[in-house]
Amino acid sequence: MTQPIDFYFEFSSPYGYFASTQVEALARDIGRSVNWHPILLGPMFKAMGSAPLTEIPLKGDYSRHDFVRTASLFGIPYRHPEKFPIATLAAARAFIHTRNTEPQQAPGLALALYRAFFAQGRDISDAEIVLDVARECGLDRDRMAAGIADETVKAQLKEEIANAMARGVFGSPFIIIDNEPFWGFDRFPHIRAWAEQA
Amino acid sequence: MTQPIDFYFEFSSPYGYFASTQVEALARDIGRSVNWHPILLGPMFKAMGSAPLTEIPLKGDYSRHDFVRTASLFGIPYRHPEKFPIATLAAARAFIHTRNTEPQQAPGLALALYRAFFAQGRDISDAEIVLDVARECGLDRDRMAAGIADETVKAQLKEEIANAMARGVFGSPFIIIDNEPFWGFDRFPHIRAWAEQA
Repeated sequence: MTQPIDFYFEFSSPYGYFASTQVEALARDIGRSVNWHPILLGPMFKAMGSAPLTEIPLKGDYSRHDFVRTASLFGIPYRHPEKFPIATLAAARAFIHTRNTEPQQAPGLALALYRAFFAQGRDISDAEIVLDVARECGLDRDRMAAGIADETVKAQLKEEIANAMARGVFGSPFIIIDNEPFWGFDRFPHIRAWAEQA
Repeated sequence: MTQPIDFYFEFSSPYGYFASTQVEALARDIGRSVNWHPILLGPMFKAMGSAPLTEIPLKGDYSRHDFVRTASLFGIPYRHPEKFPIATLAAARAFIHTRNTEPQQAPGLALALYRAFFAQGRDISDAEIVLDVARECGLDRDRMAAGIADETVKAQLKEEIANAMARGVFGSPFIIIDNEPFWGFDRFPHIRAWAEQA
């Protein structure tokens, strides 16, 4: 009996976005299902003394170029957001609320939020935009607004992040399969090769 | 008429080592030759306010695991060096001296130095070990010793690093093809896809 793969993603992460478009296919190919885990990179960067890619000298310019090129090579719609990176608390909480109440809808909401931010130029740091996207996914706007503000949901997100860090997660996307950690969209081919050898 | 690809590598970089074993095949597949450029990451990390991967909290443990796993998945011999990272001035200067005097031998020397450090447990921060490896490659030990100490060679290495940084190089391996930059061994499949589209 194989365990689901754990997929950790930050809504402000371009490589997390790319991974979100392919993680279900990857899992299917290796005979697994996916547990989606929204995280925030802020606390992790703090622990590492690191910063968002685009704010690092030299690496920043390269990264912006690599986002666009990678999207193009994989046929993924991409327009680098004007405001970047952004705070993604509202998006992450919306995901958790949906996972609590309508779990089948949660991955679709994640994909829609990512697409809104990285392909449609919509600022999902704004809770109102998150609620708009949720409604477009057929979710109830008022219940979602209440969910984002719910103390239990807030606590669950903190717990997700603490659990992730305890497992060694420090970036996005990050995938763990049977305790085997893989960091980065560029590790997808490694995951396939690793699963074949296992 | 296609230009050679520029391959930048640091002798203390595991992913640089992995790349060195495949860069000639990659270049051949896309109809190019390779210009090999030894660099030192120290000055680049300084410019970025960064540090060697293995010294970064959280990322360090993952990286050591990923070195071993990546080597295994690609069938590349690997034993993580006890002393790591190391200073690679002597190795880089030996490469440059060889490129000056017997250019056909230089890539073979790079491969042998990388193998010595990452597969044979030999400390190539020690100039004597570098000279041993050079001799095993059929190069003259005494002339190599003089080459490593030569002021022109030292200046050429500094120039290599300054030129690399001026072109935006900030890591190892780093490949530039017709001004298109690719950072990381994990970008090799991207290079193939990019070359096909071009």
